[in-house]
Amino acid sequence: MTRAFLTFLLMVAVATPVTAAERSAPITLVIHGGAGTITRAEMTPELEAEYRAALELSLRTGYERLKDGRSAVDAVEASIRVLENSPLFNAGKGAVFTHEGTNELDAAIMDGRTMMAGAVAGITIIRNPISAARAVLEKSPHVILIGRGAEVFATAQGLDIVDPSYFWTEKRWKQLQKALVDEKREGAIGRLPDPPDPKYGTVGAVALDRQGNLAAGTSTGGTTNKRFGRVGDAPIVGAGTYASNDSCAVSATGHGEFFIRYTVARDIAARMEFGGATVAEAADQVVMKKLVEAGGTGGVIALDRKGRFAMPFNTSGMYRGSIGPDGIPHVKIYADER
Amino acid sequence: MTRAFLTFLLMVAVATPVTAAERSAPITLVIHGGAGTITRAEMTPELEAEYRAALELSLRTGYERLKDGRSAVDAVEASIRVLENSPLFNAGKGAVFTHEGTNELDAAIMDGRTMMAGAVAGITIIRNPISAARAVLEKSPHVILIGRGAEVFATAQGLDIVDPSYFWTEKRWKQLQKALVDEKREGAIGRLPDPPDPKYGTVGAVALDRQGNLAAGTSTGGTTNKRFGRVGDAPIVGAGTYASNDSCAVSATGHGEFFIRYTVARDIAARMEFGGATVAEAADQVVMKKLVEAGGTGGVIALDRKGRFAMPFNTSGMYRGSIGPDGIPHVKIYADER
Repeated sequence: MTRAFLTFLLMVAVATPVTAAERSAPITLVIHGGAGTITRAEMTPELEAEYRAALELSLRTGYERLKDGRSAVDAVEASIRVLENSPLFNAGKGAVFTHEGTNELDAAIMDGRTMMAGAVAGITIIRNPISAARAVLEKSPHVILIGRGAEVFATAQGLDIVDPSYFWTEKRWKQLQKALVDEKREGAIGRLPDPPDPKYGTVGAVALDRQGNLAAGTSTGGTTNKRFGRVGDAPIVGAGTYASNDSCAVSATGHGEFFIRYTVARDIAARMEFGGATVAEAADQVVMKKLVEAGGTGGVIALDRKGRFAMPFNTSGMYRGSIGPDGIPHVKIYADER
Repeated sequence: MTRAFLTFLLMVAVATPVTAAERSAPITLVIHGGAGTITRAEMTPELEAEYRAALELSLRTGYERLKDGRSAVDAVEASIRVLENSPLFNAGKGAVFTHEGTNELDAAIMDGRTMMAGAVAGITIIRNPISAARAVLEKSPHVILIGRGAEVFATAQGLDIVDPSYFWTEKRWKQLQKALVDEKREGAIGRLPDPPDPKYGTVGAVALDRQGNLAAGTSTGGTTNKRFGRVGDAPIVGAGTYASNDSCAVSATGHGEFFIRYTVARDIAARMEFGGATVAEAADQVVMKKLVEAGGTGGVIALDRKGRFAMPFNTSGMYRGSIGPDGIPHVKIYADER
């Protein structure tokens, strides 16, 4: 055999699995609605049922997109919009309040096929921040837009604009009032102490579409009583959100500062890309070892191109769910649910 | 020999080089003043001398800190302040104008020893954004502060505040006017087309101190005619700025959107950490191959814990320089300077 023919055979051998995967990948959607101190003792049956119903609706909504042959980016956006529209999660409608009593929202979305990404931070009038992030991805040469500029852009793109009062919910308002009282008592004004009872309500989704492409998205209201224009990890590519067909799609929830410093989403992907780890190994190494040692609480969802996924978290619970080619949604909340 | 003793020997063998390095690492500082279309044809001898003098002053200023046994973070901040105070570079005093005719500055700094980081974006009244980033690192529980909130924080920290007119320079104002005219002619209003003559004046520094610790910092005015609150890669940990004693310190300059999407700084570090690449190999793989294939122009400076460094760029020039244990500054501009 000639050398050229050998090279040809090698190319076929390398190319074939990818082509096969692209024809009919095992469509998969994995979501989270935030990690934190979530225990059965603090939960009522009614509230738990509401959470499970919202997560299931999010899974079914994104799955419909994948089943119809639409892109992973489509599925991620659709699935996150459901969670943003629910008052249960700290994103969109249910966003927490800043120190000044406003709601400042962040979101990001990334397409693993093109490595294109879009993110918005500190926005106050866009009903669905994840859709604003997608508009940045598709309609802007930029990746990150912040504050008023992001709002001007989103408005020009025809996104659904709301009065800031849309984001007012009694539960979150009371959380801010409590945080303000606690802060005064602790004499920690101007700082944001680690919450004794952390609940990171950030929402996120990762998806694998029929064409074998990955996408990831994350949306959040940040931290109750946040100030100084603080931005967390959710809108930061490589921290709270990352997708690459070379490795995996990741969305994170947790103490954002740790996730930024440790480039959590990119770290998981890099361990697969350069270190040969599986998605489960990579996610575990970062969330259950590296972050635990550093004191960073939270969790991630991570999904590879074969539909294998991991949902590790180092808190007592994480609202989460998955749906695969069989279309059956699986929703979990506590750590002991396997 | 007992197993415990063998373990002990192994620990000594592993620990010794690190301890030795920590006692007297080969202090090194590497800086950049931006990559882009920088050719001898466009340069006057006077202007070139000004650039070389500013870069040399920056190197000597940071080196003094390292020689005195101060931290890599100290050296990075001091070195970048010199470049920020010069009107020659697109950072601090010489920042470019946004579409609206304002100057919005971004900066980040990261400590490779503690993995702590601080970043500011969209600030308009802080003379030295790199010092604001350092204040976030040291005095705030957050990593990223944006806009007015970041300014309130920096003011409370006693940083040097200036009237926004401090950042007005004739050269940058003319660049904006030209960009506005070009944009109208090209009918590309609302987009930011790839500049036909890109010059990314971002400045940055990476340092290795006597204790063997790494740090990285980056500061920028962004892109001429930028709008919608666009934020580039400079203030993004893992994109334009990254430092970890586990791998290397990186500061980037270039078409920021590509550097964010490809998590350039973290990618270089990950290839060393998980893939066994040297700092030169890792930086080359990302800047001269991955970014070139994607169409992302720019360059990086990268430095490891042994004082080995790389300064690859895929443009015709990059303002850059290095200074090692011998205290002799080396300044370069064009691609053919080795």
